[in-house]
Amino acid sequence: MGEKILTINPNSSQYITDALSEALEPLRMKGGPAIECVTLKEGPPGIETHLHKAVVVEPLCRLIRSRDNEAGAFVVACFGDPGLQAARDATRRPVLGMAESSFLAALAVGESFGIIATQPTSAKRHARYIRELGLEARYAGEVAVGIGILDLAKDKKETLSRMIAAGKRLRDEFGAASVITGCAGMAGFRAAVQEAIGIPVIEPTQAAVTLAIGAARVGYA
Amino acid sequence: MGEKILTINPNSSQYITDALSEALEPLRMKGGPAIECVTLKEGPPGIETHLHKAVVVEPLCRLIRSRDNEAGAFVVACFGDPGLQAARDATRRPVLGMAESSFLAALAVGESFGIIATQPTSAKRHARYIRELGLEARYAGEVAVGIGILDLAKDKKETLSRMIAAGKRLRDEFGAASVITGCAGMAGFRAAVQEAIGIPVIEPTQAAVTLAIGAARVGYA
Amino acid sequence: MGEKILTINPNSSQYITDALSEALEPLRMKGGPAIECVTLKEGPPGIETHLHKAVVVEPLCRLIRSRDNEAGAFVVACFGDPGLQAARDATRRPVLGMAESSFLAALAVGESFGIIATQPTSAKRHARYIRELGLEARYAGEVAVGIGILDLAKDKKETLSRMIAAGKRLRDEFGAASVITGCAGMAGFRAAVQEAIGIPVIEPTQAAVTLAIGAARVGYA
Amino acid sequence: MGEKILTINPNSSQYITDALSEALEPLRMKGGPAIECVTLKEGPPGIETHLHKAVVVEPLCRLIRSRDNEAGAFVVACFGDPGLQAARDATRRPVLGMAESSFLAALAVGESFGIIATQPTSAKRHARYIRELGLEARYAGEVAVGIGILDLAKDKKETLSRMIAAGKRLRDEFGAASVITGCAGMAGFRAAVQEAIGIPVIEPTQAAVTLAIGAARVGYA
Amino acid sequence: MGEKILTINPNSSQYITDALSEALEPLRMKGGPAIECVTLKEGPPGIETHLHKAVVVEPLCRLIRSRDNEAGAFVVACFGDPGLQAARDATRRPVLGMAESSFLAALAVGESFGIIATQPTSAKRHARYIRELGLEARYAGEVAVGIGILDLAKDKKETLSRMIAAGKRLRDEFGAASVITGCAGMAGFRAAVQEAIGIPVIEPTQAAVTLAIGAARVGYA
Amino acid sequence: MGEKILTINPNSSQYITDALSEALEPLRMKGGPAIECVTLKEGPPGIETHLHKAVVVEPLCRLIRSRDNEAGAFVVACFGDPGLQAARDATRRPVLGMAESSFLAALAVGESFGIIATQPTSAKRHARYIRELGLEARYAGEVAVGIGILDLAKDKKETLSRMIAAGKRLRDEFGAASVITGCAGMAGFRAAVQEAIGIPVIEPTQAAVTLAIGAARVGYA
Repeated sequence: MGEKILTINPNSSQYITDALSEALEPLRMKGGPAIECVTLKEGPPGIETHLHKAVVVEPLCRLIRSRDNEAGAFVVACFGDPGLQAARDATRRPVLGMAESSFLAALAVGESFGIIATQPTSAKRHARYIRELGLEARYAGEVAVGIGILDLAKDKKETLSRMIAAGKRLRDEFGAASVITGCAGMAGFRAAVQEAIGIPVIEPTQAAVTLAIGAARVGYA
Repeated sequence: MGEKILTINPNSSQYITDALSEALEPLRMKGGPAIECVTLKEGPPGIETHLHKAVVVEPLCRLIRSRDNEAGAFVVACFGDPGLQAARDATRRPVLGMAESSFLAALAVGESFGIIATQPTSAKRHARYIRELGLEARYAGEVAVGIGILDLAKDKKETLSRMIAAGKRLRDEFGAASVITGCAGMAGFRAAVQEAIGIPVIEPTQAAVTLAIGAARVGYA
Repeated sequence: MGEKILTINPNSSQYITDALSEALEPLRMKGGPAIECVTLKEGPPGIETHLHKAVVVEPLCRLIRSRDNEAGAFVVACFGDPGLQAARDATRRPVLGMAESSFLAALAVGESFGIIATQPTSAKRHARYIRELGLEARYAGEVAVGIGILDLAKDKKETLSRMIAAGKRLRDEFGAASVITGCAGMAGFRAAVQEAIGIPVIEPTQAAVTLAIGAARVGYA
Repeated sequence: MGEKILTINPNSSQYITDALSEALEPLRMKGGPAIECVTLKEGPPGIETHLHKAVVVEPLCRLIRSRDNEAGAFVVACFGDPGLQAARDATRRPVLGMAESSFLAALAVGESFGIIATQPTSAKRHARYIRELGLEARYAGEVAVGIGILDLAKDKKETLSRMIAAGKRLRDEFGAASVITGCAGMAGFRAAVQEAIGIPVIEPTQAAVTLAIGAARVGYA
Repeated sequence: MGEKILTINPNSSQYITDALSEALEPLRMKGGPAIECVTLKEGPPGIETHLHKAVVVEPLCRLIRSRDNEAGAFVVACFGDPGLQAARDATRRPVLGMAESSFLAALAVGESFGIIATQPTSAKRHARYIRELGLEARYAGEVAVGIGILDLAKDKKETLSRMIAAGKRLRDEFGAASVITGCAGMAGFRAAVQEAIGIPVIEPTQAAVTLAIGAARVGYA
Repeated sequence: MGEKILTINPNSSQYITDALSEALEPLRMKGGPAIECVTLKEGPPGIETHLHKAVVVEPLCRLIRSRDNEAGAFVVACFGDPGLQAARDATRRPVLGMAESSFLAALAVGESFGIIATQPTSAKRHARYIRELGLEARYAGEVAVGIGILDLAKDKKETLSRMIAAGKRLRDEFGAASVITGCAGMAGFRAAVQEAIGIPVIEPTQAAVTLAIGAARVGYA
């Protein structure tokens, strides 16, 4: 078994893959696992609907199977955790989901977590997923910035400003002890938001890769 | 802020600290955080009662405050998570609990987790803690090996054999998708139990240190 | 808006579509909605994995959109409820899922329900879906007959005998007040199992079409 | 067994029985079950207290037993579901409760449901009943119009206007995906409220009779 | 306001009222509230069905209103808590239910409680009531002795022996930390069962009167 | 076994012990158990942190063991229930916790309870404890008066006024049916707050001593 962490961005936007890779830099350690980020070229530019989530599953599983020998663990790097269960059927290596991992990371740093979302439409979907995972007792709520996934990088100052405002609302009105950036496209804003709001801000791909490092080094298989 | 992970064994048994340190070897990576294991000399030889859990809190907090400048994150390495909340009040660094972290690690590898305990008396205490954390929907159950913490290392063959039997019961009768070794003194048996039962076996200190590495490298503060 | 109930079997096995259509005969009433059953030709012969569930979503949504003008309500007739959320995004008509509807029908006839499954592997998936729906307080458990979906019709006597045995276990050991036949391929056995075990046996497509009739006649849109 | 659905209004207000019967018109299909609505003459004019709920139980059970041979299913048509359990002991036919059925119908059309109530005093009673049924994860909340059951028909324009306002609050402030009209006396307003608020509005007697049609035609007994 | 605790046995069996009164002897303190036990002569000999529970509500409320001036608190002394909510509407004095109080008393003495029932038919009813109260996380289960309420006093040796067996099963197989005697007619056996099984045995009328004493002396009104 | 109720104030502020003793006056009945209040001289002046809670456990257990022969039941009179589990290990007598008992008393008088706290920082701690006890379905919320435990007695008029305001918010905005005074130092204000807000106000030490009286008189051991 190789020890590489293969992080798959299931949408086809290379600039998001690049941003994720940059966000993962602190988790690249000389003697630790290699962390490679790849783009699923068959995916849509952004994954924003149930249909989008479904259509990436087959190419995602194909990619995982084709690189199974190289990797010690896989990460599905989209906050909807598309195809996570199917991916786990496709390999015996650990497969970490971005959203699931971010919830677990958040549980380790405080009583309840909030989510900064792109659009208000995802709130019910996330609440339902959190209930599916049995974690609803620790979920504080979600606030959207009202910027679509493909527009987050357009006016970065505006995006950051709205993310900070959302984080403050989650902290003050929803009582969140930590905040999750609920979209792969928000990875670059984590540190600045945390600096501004004073509570831990979890970037989900970092959370998933952290668990993947542990899984790959210890060897859960 | 330093980047060292300070792992504190709150009981005074040095050989358990040593076993933990050995179990953490795969998580020591060149270029990654140093992982130091220390023994709380004021602790009892093993922490087995509510009273034991309480008496270690003050010296534990004192130790954390005295070494706050060196560390990027702390781990409390006893499966009862003694003093975890008080420790979090004592420092702004992330403090990871061994039991809490093991539950989170288990949630990332399968639907439900079981616990291999030393004595049957801990089952209700653990169930209550899992409910306190809001994770009861994912908890399969607990099976004890009937060997006290200080005797686990006496007849290692017998200990391993009982741990494997407990793991199989958790897998087959309780439907556990993963199993947690519910005592710091069981750290050395993880790989052999996993090999025998064919589902992931989580060693809690490894789980806590994994999260600590992520927290220290990313910087939740 | 038409008043037809369009029942879509998302696997490509025409004989299952035929059996469903026969099971729906009692719900065809003069003066009531037409009930048409169609086979999704792009589907696999049986839907048994997460990957199977994903690959039918796109053709299912295409079929729904292409027949949106004719139908008053749609039914997705596979116990895994594949693509249910995506289908609801694809039309403003009500879309009923087979599993979801069967749980709701069961809640109306008794305190807790059990599921007769084909294979033991589905138990965790169903438990997780029931938790996603927030209905876990009323779920008694699942017993599998150990016959694959494509083999249920091979030796009908054996299938019936195993279904009756499973139903009795659910009633007596799990305390189920009603039992759901957890596979579209079991539709033809409902009455005989109910006769043998003396508690209501819910056939999920009938449950879904019942709700679809109400939705189409009343007009939730 | 007859196939008639016997719908019993347990309060003695004939005009409410008449309104229910009118609301059920879309569910009367030429080849489907007859739907008869009867008034429990021993009931109070409106059922608004725990005591009211208790005193109708005995005459309700007597009525059910006296007409047991004619009916394929019974519906108790009061939103408090008075005597529902006792009624189920009184006959082997399916007995549907109005509130219970409305919750189930609502679960099939969206993530969470709200209730439009007559008076604010019922909110805790309903919340408790929803918890008794194990459905609290899907309950959004309740808003009252502040008009007593016997006055709903007095100024219909005012009643409608307040029901629409309540529905909008449930949709916008409570996040309800559907709304239930929480009183038999509101049956006539369903369509107009739905038209105004744009999400499904569930009339509970329609929901109960829908399930009763399925139960009677399929034959759960 | 008087300070008497009026304990109402809502069934018409005077010998049960007498047994309750005897069980309450330890709670009669010279300077404390008088504890009077009365029989609801309109009740059936035993309350064993939903219909029985309903028919006692009106005479129970009448009795409470007629003696409202004398009492500081009321106790409804039947394990089904018949008419408890209606009784609370009938007076401003505290009204304690026997089952509800026994659950609360049990929560104060251990992690989870079991119930010794008369007949197996009550298990689902009790489970549902416990869920209505939101206490299901602490409920271990129920074991029946298979003796009807009116026969408990016939062969006392046999009754005691079966109660002890049930208590041991609850303790050993269900993990109960305490046991509730789930029928007013079992009051006389509490001490002997506790002696035999070594964990607290809660007699529900004693539990209710204890809370009533506090309510009457402190004055919650 | 003696019958005395030994009520231990685990902080070292004698004036709080005195106030508690005064609050317990109504529960001192001729012929009933003696109620003695003692101060844990080793405790801090007020218990406000996790560390405070831990350091009192050992002297608390020592005190309990030293007076085990005199007492029929013990009460730990601090709203954080410090050392409650350890205290239960230290004696076979019933040990009642102040917070736990107040929740149970509140459940007997209404659907949901609120807490009046001293400082806003305790809200998450209390919510977590309530979830640990499995009572979260009945918890309405918490409002703080913003006065530290040692300052509650300084300006009694101001304290009362803020407690009444908090009680009204809990009743009107959180829907609480009863209110708990969440600090031993608030004992003297119970009656005046209840008078002002018109719903039951629970003083936790009274609640604990009530249960202790029952336990001591009946004899759960």
